[in-house]
Amino acid sequence: MIEVTIIGSGNIAFHLAKAWHKSEKVKLKNVIGRNQKSLDEFKQFANVSSDFSSIGSTAVCLLAVSDEAIGSVSEQIPQGDYLVLHTSGATNLQAISDKHRRGVFYPFQSFSKNSTFKYAEIPLLLEVGTDKDKELLIQLAESFSQNHQFLDSEQRLKLHLAGTFVNNFANHLFQIGFDLCQANKFSVELLKPLIRETADKIMHINPKEAQTGPAKRNDKDTIEKHLALLPEGKSKEIYKLITSSIQDI
Amino acid sequence: MIEVTIIGSGNIAFHLAKAWHKSEKVKLKNVIGRNQKSLDEFKQFANVSSDFSSIGSTAVCLLAVSDEAIGSVSEQIPQGDYLVLHTSGATNLQAISDKHRRGVFYPFQSFSKNSTFKYAEIPLLLEVGTDKDKELLIQLAESFSQNHQFLDSEQRLKLHLAGTFVNNFANHLFQIGFDLCQANKFSVELLKPLIRETADKIMHINPKEAQTGPAKRNDKDTIEKHLALLPEGKSKEIYKLITSSIQDI
Repeated sequence: MIEVTIIGSGNIAFHLAKAWHKSEKVKLKNVIGRNQKSLDEFKQFANVSSDFSSIGSTAVCLLAVSDEAIGSVSEQIPQGDYLVLHTSGATNLQAISDKHRRGVFYPFQSFSKNSTFKYAEIPLLLEVGTDKDKELLIQLAESFSQNHQFLDSEQRLKLHLAGTFVNNFANHLFQIGFDLCQANKFSVELLKPLIRETADKIMHINPKEAQTGPAKRNDKDTIEKHLALLPEGKSKEIYKLITSSIQDI
Repeated sequence: MIEVTIIGSGNIAFHLAKAWHKSEKVKLKNVIGRNQKSLDEFKQFANVSSDFSSIGSTAVCLLAVSDEAIGSVSEQIPQGDYLVLHTSGATNLQAISDKHRRGVFYPFQSFSKNSTFKYAEIPLLLEVGTDKDKELLIQLAESFSQNHQFLDSEQRLKLHLAGTFVNNFANHLFQIGFDLCQANKFSVELLKPLIRETADKIMHINPKEAQTGPAKRNDKDTIEKHLALLPEGKSKEIYKLITSSIQDI
């Protein structure tokens, strides 16, 4: 049993705690956080505390805090016989205070509290400061997901960038679609089967082959009609730029 | 039984033929198209022909052809006692030759041949030239989907525009993500759980609430690191513009 302490009480912390709570390979000892209200939700999984000195004996201290807080929070963790991991895609391993043995445990997924996940399928990107910790990190990874690999900080950032396009940016386009529906008093439910198919399709077809629409067909008539409907602003700029980007390929 | 003839042999034609082939409310009489090879795939559903004069007796002639072809193909259809429908989101009802009774039967979905759909859930947007045809169109719609409503040509175009953002444009962002993975020798499989969750999440949360990431958090450090990784070009412009659009809200 690997003893684990989680520091942080947000969505990543929640899903890791949930997964490890029922794991036979991990003993979740403590969840440490400042926000007492968020911590309450973790009582079902482990002891909760707001005190770093309660860490005590643990093999792993996992930081599930915001990127900017990794440095300062890791500095506050008392030195001890444990591996300190952060969970950020865009942050170097070296952001963790060098008084600790360091590593990265980055689940490549967008977590919200109420979603359910097949944890075993979430890609997990790993990094260690010293090869001595590699075996421990692999064991911890295998307790969570069968889909894990080692990437260095630079490679992890590149993957995080790809994720930003397909997650944050795609979600923004979904929002523009929702906004257009609401402005025209259509139910946003109309968009959902289309959004679902857009994502489903590329599970088995490359998005390049899946591309359809007026930009792909160079259907200038429809493009003009669409542009005439869009008021001046960011959505219109996005329409023009993505249309031109589709046509570049 | 409503007798239907489909003109066209693309993906929309295929899924309509597939649905109506087993319908108890529709008798699919003919599928008419120019491309003999595509037509072969329709032999399992109905008679196939490349000859417009084979239309004969039918209640509905459904055009599943490209937007630009709606005018010329509908002109070639001999006048008769049937309702002529097109299936386009971005095309006016009036594009159909005025020698016919006219209507629109627009399934708001992105069809590819090998996908499977719950036809009953696909939103269907309807329009008729004369109220006399309304009942026939409703009956035809109900044979395909329980989710249908009437929209005029202008409203339908506005919905088509919203669909372009959430389907064609989102798919292009997925392609940029795939390209970034391939350029860095990551498997594109890494992106799939994230893409699936991005779409799944907004089935029950508004995308505005679902938005996360460096743009939303105004995490300038990560934004700078991402921009440094992107070569000059459309992807970098898209990164800057969508980041700024997320921050506008």
